[in-house]
Amino acid sequence: MYQIANLGQLKDLIQFLPEPDEETEVLARMRQGDLTKPPGSLGRLEELAIWLCAWQSRERPQLKKIQALVFAGNHGVTAQGVSAYPAEVTGQMVENFKTGGAAINQLCKVADAKLEVIALELDTPTQDFTLAPALEKSAFLKCFNAGLSAVDSNSDCLILGEMGIGNTTVAAAVCFGLFGGGPADWVGRGTGVDDAGLKLKTDVLQQGYDRHNAVLDDPLEVLRCLGGRELVAIAGAVLAARQARIPVILDGYISTAAAAPLEVMVPGALDHCVVGHCSSETGHHGLLERLNKQPLLDLNMRLGEGSGAAVAALILKAAVGVHNGMATFAQAGVSEKT
Amino acid sequence: MYQIANLGQLKDLIQFLPEPDEETEVLARMRQGDLTKPPGSLGRLEELAIWLCAWQSRERPQLKKIQALVFAGNHGVTAQGVSAYPAEVTGQMVENFKTGGAAINQLCKVADAKLEVIALELDTPTQDFTLAPALEKSAFLKCFNAGLSAVDSNSDCLILGEMGIGNTTVAAAVCFGLFGGGPADWVGRGTGVDDAGLKLKTDVLQQGYDRHNAVLDDPLEVLRCLGGRELVAIAGAVLAARQARIPVILDGYISTAAAAPLEVMVPGALDHCVVGHCSSETGHHGLLERLNKQPLLDLNMRLGEGSGAAVAALILKAAVGVHNGMATFAQAGVSEKT
Repeated sequence: MYQIANLGQLKDLIQFLPEPDEETEVLARMRQGDLTKPPGSLGRLEELAIWLCAWQSRERPQLKKIQALVFAGNHGVTAQGVSAYPAEVTGQMVENFKTGGAAINQLCKVADAKLEVIALELDTPTQDFTLAPALEKSAFLKCFNAGLSAVDSNSDCLILGEMGIGNTTVAAAVCFGLFGGGPADWVGRGTGVDDAGLKLKTDVLQQGYDRHNAVLDDPLEVLRCLGGRELVAIAGAVLAARQARIPVILDGYISTAAAAPLEVMVPGALDHCVVGHCSSETGHHGLLERLNKQPLLDLNMRLGEGSGAAVAALILKAAVGVHNGMATFAQAGVSEKT
Repeated sequence: MYQIANLGQLKDLIQFLPEPDEETEVLARMRQGDLTKPPGSLGRLEELAIWLCAWQSRERPQLKKIQALVFAGNHGVTAQGVSAYPAEVTGQMVENFKTGGAAINQLCKVADAKLEVIALELDTPTQDFTLAPALEKSAFLKCFNAGLSAVDSNSDCLILGEMGIGNTTVAAAVCFGLFGGGPADWVGRGTGVDDAGLKLKTDVLQQGYDRHNAVLDDPLEVLRCLGGRELVAIAGAVLAARQARIPVILDGYISTAAAAPLEVMVPGALDHCVVGHCSSETGHHGLLERLNKQPLLDLNMRLGEGSGAAVAALILKAAVGVHNGMATFAQAGVSEKT
């Protein structure tokens, strides 16, 4: 896919987003009404099928080719001690993804999704956002372009996930920067910090907010100054998927926070995305409310890696199965409602 | 599987239930702690995997052979006009199941489950419970035995569903009989009745409750007098699965109501069951609270047929995938929590 050369080009791109195919949506909705079940009785499975039809412009949606992209990055803010794990775990887990030992490997097998892991300069962590912008403009563009170019435009669906020790703090900082409130609304225990760690994360968030206060009215600047490489790449991938009208399944708190700046800039920019699950990480629930997104699953998961999105892909498969395979009342000779 | 000859034998059987394998459970829990993820970060996927290990007595659980049983029955109480669909739809839908056109056919394909549909004397509806016990004792035993014998004891997991025009009214009557409260706590719109229909269902429930008031302290009598053939068969299948230590996925309101009398008789009798989803049918939420069951999904579904349970089977598959396939910290060379 194309690359962008500067932030102005990016802002232009976001203003012209493809919309779902309304005609196919109407046909899909009619078909759901004809299938042998009381109207609406399959709930969100019906909505998901119609949503897939509209974005794929297919009367019979398909999920033959599911791409799963996991972006990994390291974060300068880990120097503040915000994570329960050492920063080298990011690279170790990337190796684990490559040898097939992580949760996302297994979940992609179950969902028959093709996993690609993209490590973004793990040896060069971002700047500590309490001291400086996390990313220079050139590094921001590089990561955004990495996301743009990673998307396979022939995919039927895209799963987005991430890995990065310290990135629940980063996601919380982005949310705090975008939506305000208090830092405590956005921080949680991540991979498992104690009470003191939680207090530290809250303080770190406030410091980041104060340092970058002057640019917080620009969502892309929030992402650049308080975000991280993997978050920026996810935002790029979300935009590339929209350009190709590929339905996206976002994962948990970090993936949703990464995509949020697009929706803040242009309401509706995430209409081609569903959120796979509600993370048990504090902050995700409030973020979903701000974005008016209802997650598909709530299984008390908080792993990241795209794990919740991969499980949610199974729900989409169920939706496609019933939409494409069920008989209509006329075909089955079943009496309709009296 | 064995058949029971009388209600006393049934009551004896319920008093001696196999328990999960505690040793395997401990080993499974230890393994979850060793896998390359923060402890607990896969939430309910971890719990489900451990639960499957314990009931299957396998350190690596499997879901190769999933049996889906859908029992169908007709209900005398439909003469009161409690459903939005005519009673002949039960038989028409059974035909639809047989020719593969229903939602449950497609969902079983997605979950790779083997579907069996068992129609229980559709030409002989139960008695209208406002006038007489729904089933004579002999008919009750026959249906219970049909459920007992339908379970394949070599299955790795059992999905239970039902079809029966009028059976949301029947399920509500069973719940009202078991748990009391008011009839309005238990009735909903079913396949889609209007406000007048809802009022009618409420009145019918109160009539049934009053007529059988003398036997409501016996959960099996509640099921016999207010239930229906497919509900009784589900209760039998739940008990057969327990005897064979097969994990069960219950579907929505009707399946859960069918199994509820066992739990009321012997607390813990449904420990081998998860509830696949929370139906949008009024009453299911309250029933789940009484049974202390947290459903796996909440997708605004209310179709029955085992549809929610079949979708939930996909979640179990995800749980098995991560439990069996992930690397441990030691295997992957990933640093543990600091």
